[in-house]
Amino acid sequence: MSQEDRYVAETTFYVRYAETDAMGIVHHGSYITYMEEGRTNYARQRGSDYASFERSGFYLTVTEIHTRYLKPARYGLRLTVRCWIEDMKSRSIVFAYEIIDTDTKELFVTGQSKHVCITHDGHVTRLPESWRAWRN
Amino acid sequence: MSQEDRYVAETTFYVRYAETDAMGIVHHGSYITYMEEGRTNYARQRGSDYASFERSGFYLTVTEIHTRYLKPARYGLRLTVRCWIEDMKSRSIVFAYEIIDTDTKELFVTGQSKHVCITHDGHVTRLPESWRAWRN
Amino acid sequence: MSQEDRYVAETTFYVRYAETDAMGIVHHGSYITYMEEGRTNYARQRGSDYASFERSGFYLTVTEIHTRYLKPARYGLRLTVRCWIEDMKSRSIVFAYEIIDTDTKELFVTGQSKHVCITHDGHVTRLPESWRAWRN
Amino acid sequence: MSQEDRYVAETTFYVRYAETDAMGIVHHGSYITYMEEGRTNYARQRGSDYASFERSGFYLTVTEIHTRYLKPARYGLRLTVRCWIEDMKSRSIVFAYEIIDTDTKELFVTGQSKHVCITHDGHVTRLPESWRAWRN
Repeated sequence: MSQEDRYVAETTFYVRYAETDAMGIVHHGSYITYMEEGRTNYARQRGSDYASFERSGFYLTVTEIHTRYLKPARYGLRLTVRCWIEDMKSRSIVFAYEIIDTDTKELFVTGQSKHVCITHDGHVTRLPESWRAWRN
Repeated sequence: MSQEDRYVAETTFYVRYAETDAMGIVHHGSYITYMEEGRTNYARQRGSDYASFERSGFYLTVTEIHTRYLKPARYGLRLTVRCWIEDMKSRSIVFAYEIIDTDTKELFVTGQSKHVCITHDGHVTRLPESWRAWRN
Repeated sequence: MSQEDRYVAETTFYVRYAETDAMGIVHHGSYITYMEEGRTNYARQRGSDYASFERSGFYLTVTEIHTRYLKPARYGLRLTVRCWIEDMKSRSIVFAYEIIDTDTKELFVTGQSKHVCITHDGHVTRLPESWRAWRN
Repeated sequence: MSQEDRYVAETTFYVRYAETDAMGIVHHGSYITYMEEGRTNYARQRGSDYASFERSGFYLTVTEIHTRYLKPARYGLRLTVRCWIEDMKSRSIVFAYEIIDTDTKELFVTGQSKHVCITHDGHVTRLPESWRAWRN
């Protein structure tokens, strides 16, 4: 899948006060939750949401997280998480993320998360077809 | 101000996975953040947002929180926080909240938060006029 | 049970940076987690921890939280949660809390949490005997 | 500095219920806070805690986080964060982490965090001598 064709889900929300820290900025850990909300919304937009995925007997476990912090965001800002699939194999997915200022498009954070599909008793398994279809 | 005339701000969002706990439901502490986001949005809708309030030299410190948990909410649901001013004095505000299922209107949590207006060096002070006007 | 005889569990820890907010103080929502850790440790100290309680088929669901914020705590401080049982009935418990500066004993927050014992399929049920014994 | 000589700070605590998620395990974002608490304790043990560092006019901003999730941890477990300095330059530090089961020593998560020393108005600056001394 070329970069031009990939589907990018955009999720927009305000920074919550609870997500800031004593430096006066968004705590670096809060972006992990923003990324999670970004990939949740990716699945929702593509018609096969994560709650249904779980009810079908799967979990998408997180095996790796990588984030780069370029600029600090602050309370009161509106952020947009741009999320897309960077790589997908039969049993795993890599999501990539950019977190930007919704208004100025300034880039705050980039990230990736790697996931493996497991059954509820913990065995690695193939992603369901509804999710496999996102490759195309 | 009678109940009929009061301004009610509604804030709608999806439950985030990070906000759930091992009981499979939204953690009771997450609603404290939802209430905060509800009153933040109240101020935003009424034209005098909290970020500006802080930059003007004030903090709205929390002096008391009271929440009742009626039913558990779950990941995947869309929640609406209904927030209004229950009481306002020259230096203090009481906000009240209902947190409902956006679609079914089922009530999950009710709450109140009490606040005192302070300066950045910690002295109790009068609320600015822009906020005082919300009484009417 | 008179106040003199009641068992008080003390739990001590440092404020974590992630628990602060842009006001430079501990976010009011963080104390909800401190209270939870206080009652978790209460059960642990009394020999019947919450993880075992859950594995036995119970949940202790939260039905009400009440907190009063007297003074703000800051990053770097060591806090002690003092937790005791304020009231216990056959199917419910009220825990009470004081959160103090471990070194100076200054009082930051007081709180109460009300709980009902339920089965994993959500029916209200009697507390197990190991927990009932804490009344005495 | 050879691996044999490096100082490793160990920080031990119980998993909090609020840190779990609906998969019944510790939420992957919670480990970011555990790592932060690990490096906070590193500084404390080496005699120059982060609160003093901030009061001296510095912030240690986070520029990059990398975590690998090997096994899920659960509520009720006691975890130990092992934290050491992987690399230090005049203006930056890389901390590395292992998060293990305190009792069985089983490894749950490994991680790294990269940091740059800045002044309170955001300019990159040299680490203070008290922290520079940790190289040796």
